[in-house]
Amino acid sequence: MVKELRLALIGFGTVGQGLAELLMEKRDWLRAAYGLDARLVAVATARSGFLARAEGLDEAELLRIAASGQPLTAYAATGVKRWPTVREGLAATGADVLVEVTGTNLRDGEPGLSHIRQALEQGIHVITANKGPVALAAHELLALAARKGVQLRMEATVMAGTPVLSTLLEGLAGARIRALSGILNGTTNYILTAMSQGRDYSEALLEAQRLGYAEADPSADVEGYDALAKTLILAALVFGLPLRAEQVQRRGIAGVTQEEVRAAQAQGRRIKLVASLRLREGVEVSATSPSGQMPALPVEARVEPVALPLEHPLARVDGVMNALTVECDTLDSVTVIGPGAGRRQTAQGLLADLLAIARAQT
Amino acid sequence: MVKELRLALIGFGTVGQGLAELLMEKRDWLRAAYGLDARLVAVATARSGFLARAEGLDEAELLRIAASGQPLTAYAATGVKRWPTVREGLAATGADVLVEVTGTNLRDGEPGLSHIRQALEQGIHVITANKGPVALAAHELLALAARKGVQLRMEATVMAGTPVLSTLLEGLAGARIRALSGILNGTTNYILTAMSQGRDYSEALLEAQRLGYAEADPSADVEGYDALAKTLILAALVFGLPLRAEQVQRRGIAGVTQEEVRAAQAQGRRIKLVASLRLREGVEVSATSPSGQMPALPVEARVEPVALPLEHPLARVDGVMNALTVECDTLDSVTVIGPGAGRRQTAQGLLADLLAIARAQT
Repeated sequence: MVKELRLALIGFGTVGQGLAELLMEKRDWLRAAYGLDARLVAVATARSGFLARAEGLDEAELLRIAASGQPLTAYAATGVKRWPTVREGLAATGADVLVEVTGTNLRDGEPGLSHIRQALEQGIHVITANKGPVALAAHELLALAARKGVQLRMEATVMAGTPVLSTLLEGLAGARIRALSGILNGTTNYILTAMSQGRDYSEALLEAQRLGYAEADPSADVEGYDALAKTLILAALVFGLPLRAEQVQRRGIAGVTQEEVRAAQAQGRRIKLVASLRLREGVEVSATSPSGQMPALPVEARVEPVALPLEHPLARVDGVMNALTVECDTLDSVTVIGPGAGRRQTAQGLLADLLAIARAQT
Repeated sequence: MVKELRLALIGFGTVGQGLAELLMEKRDWLRAAYGLDARLVAVATARSGFLARAEGLDEAELLRIAASGQPLTAYAATGVKRWPTVREGLAATGADVLVEVTGTNLRDGEPGLSHIRQALEQGIHVITANKGPVALAAHELLALAARKGVQLRMEATVMAGTPVLSTLLEGLAGARIRALSGILNGTTNYILTAMSQGRDYSEALLEAQRLGYAEADPSADVEGYDALAKTLILAALVFGLPLRAEQVQRRGIAGVTQEEVRAAQAQGRRIKLVASLRLREGVEVSATSPSGQMPALPVEARVEPVALPLEHPLARVDGVMNALTVECDTLDSVTVIGPGAGRRQTAQGLLADLLAIARAQT
């Protein structure tokens, strides 16, 4: 039995195009192996507004238009309707699943936050690769999704399509998680790995920029803000905590010197930018103090360079690879290692989320 | 909303007792966090037959009886009924989920295979930690489960509760898996790790036996039969292939010498017992030859000692830890590292499977 899901894709940059490619390339197989017919019924960009076509939009044509540099309004087919904004378009057309892949904004989460809120309010499932809205408001958004009886999934926001969120929430279901520690940013791991091979910080950064791993303004990565955003997402999903950025001890890698890297190596250690969340002993996650005061934060949250001993499962995760180690009551320690960025890698996370939604509906 | 699932637990050895402990210890939390009320309504052992009580059996009392060495027939409560066999008891009482945790038998899979077949035929979901039935007949049993509209889950059969099967089938949904390679047996990994630290094979084996990692007759582990059984399970789940033991190239570690281990180390390598499955190029998994002949096997399947370069993600997985590396089209390589055995660790796999069944029912 084949189940149809109508998708509205908000954002058509690298990740949105990556998903369109996977949907096109895997269409027959998704139908045969998973019974899923994913029909793209809307696409939106800031430049072109919200385009919808109930019979479906052709991914190949959209990709061709994007590659040519034209606006998506160049899409010519009978039955295409256009609204100037996502707000109006989504309200008028609906969908089964909203795919939110506009650019990450860690200040206020917009415009993604409004898109996600509206979709959930309309009873539409949401999958997203956009860290901003979920770093800032996952707690609120998950509660809204639960109230509306729909799913909000975000596998692609942490370690791209490497299955870590599904592992934490589904693969490890029933385990009590005590702590998480991860290498969640590929750019800084690339730089630290290059430094461990003898380059100094600025040389390694330039190299990362040349290879496209670091942006012209690298501060979101090297100052630890990207890893911090992922830490907030993990805190909301795993511990149900609406953690704020200022509650995380953050230190980036810009101050790490070649000498420190070498000194660590001489001691059999490797310096890594580690994002960590650890439940405090004896503090219940749901605790409220009798005085009505804000209770002590039930987790210790940090993003900082740490000199890990070589036997630590994260110590040998090099280059742009990411990894997450989970400590829990029944399994001691489980580590997942995989890519943390990339067009197809990120689109894979969206695809797995889409298939999870399809699975829950049969 | 709390959903009740009535469990019939077949086998009350280490793993069955481990699950009973987790159900007892986590009862309140499973209800609060997952909306699951797991009620144990039957338990069976070869010695005591099939005991059922519709109102539920008390795990603490069953554990106390087992610890005292008495048969479970010592369980005294109103409403307990007894049948001499699982066949009769299950037919008479039913359940929502059968938990099959009798001893592994790699020759014919019995008695587990008959228990699983009967439960699926009765439309009962099955979760199992028993490798025998699924190594020999997963392909047939999964088809039967699909026909009956129920789930057959087996997370605990490969790497205990470390979430690898859920990762392959659900976390990586949508990815095309090309190859798997894993350290799937803790005993042999312990021995090889000890050998890399200077001990010889027989010394390391004795040590593993003293620590309870190896059995008095270690052949199932050291000759690679345990890893082979897990390879057959992976072939059925990931590639849909009813692979037979004789189609796997198998070589154990009994022939590995201290000299070989040292020579590998000198070349920056580590010898590991690696179980692997790799799709052959250009062969479709579903291919049938036009002549009606058995087509070439679409995967290459091996269990053998391999000298891995240090940068291989499995090379540094030491001691009793297990790991699995997956290669797929969208993510290159993903590795999951975690425990591969143990009472609570295995019970965790059953618990995650139970929660997956509960999740699919809401």
